[in-house]
Amino acid sequence: MTEKTHEKYMRAAIAEAHQAEILGEVPIGAVVVHDGQIIGRGHNMREKFQDVTYHAEILAIMEACTNLGSWRLEDCDLYVTLEPCIMCSGAIVNARIKNVYYGAKDPKAGAVDSLYHLLSDQRLNHQVNVESGLLGAECSQMLKDFFRAIRKKKKLARKKRRSKD
Amino acid sequence: MTEKTHEKYMRAAIAEAHQAEILGEVPIGAVVVHDGQIIGRGHNMREKFQDVTYHAEILAIMEACTNLGSWRLEDCDLYVTLEPCIMCSGAIVNARIKNVYYGAKDPKAGAVDSLYHLLSDQRLNHQVNVESGLLGAECSQMLKDFFRAIRKKKKLARKKRRSKD
Repeated sequence: MTEKTHEKYMRAAIAEAHQAEILGEVPIGAVVVHDGQIIGRGHNMREKFQDVTYHAEILAIMEACTNLGSWRLEDCDLYVTLEPCIMCSGAIVNARIKNVYYGAKDPKAGAVDSLYHLLSDQRLNHQVNVESGLLGAECSQMLKDFFRAIRKKKKLARKKRRSKD
Repeated sequence: MTEKTHEKYMRAAIAEAHQAEILGEVPIGAVVVHDGQIIGRGHNMREKFQDVTYHAEILAIMEACTNLGSWRLEDCDLYVTLEPCIMCSGAIVNARIKNVYYGAKDPKAGAVDSLYHLLSDQRLNHQVNVESGLLGAECSQMLKDFFRAIRKKKKLARKKRRSKD
């Protein structure tokens, strides 16, 4: 697969992340690719549905399982804008996904390279190839902009409250 | 909480595991308890729905989130017949569940005591109290019986095939 093709799929994951952003969610998006087709898409919807499992990767994996009619995603690749957490890494291993491409690192909760190396643990019955940093700067900037906007909003709200007192 | 009360909830998790068994699934069950009430129940349905995320714990957690209207299960306890895997341990930490009681150890995929200690990792923003071995012998026996029956079924099928040849 060419670098351009990888970028195309990561752009689809970024588009999913923007969907999350529109909902006021932390902008994280993911897609699952099989035989050159996107068969699963997901974006973070934890707040909207108040469901802790509604991470981008879980939703993309669930859709991929439905579309393939199988819980085994052996010949599938996952593209995700942020390094997967423990829960999502576990789902990736359980689903036997072949390759994972992620954008930005997550030093606080990432379980692929940052806190753990769950996708390459030889004790598990499946290992996943990993490539990090694909459109990483863009994925990272999207998150920084989101959190900056949140902080600005909170600051303004505090200012308003103070001026009312 | 008394030992008897803990056993009552684990019996509810075992009842869920039996529901899985009826479906021909590996018998694993879980319940989430809040304020003395079971607010989430789940049993393994991976094969039936061909969905890799349909573990007992994930389904019980999802139902609990729906019933509480919150992804935060801070004052909740989870009872599960088998030591949670990586995916489920991640979901438990993400949901900020208070206590986890599990029955049998899972030396191959358990991520609470066997392969990892994910629920007590001080680097994560939440740690979970864990008690293992609650009705452990019963939980373990249920799994042994299931796999013995599977092996017997396979052996009989091979025998039948051979007698036809």
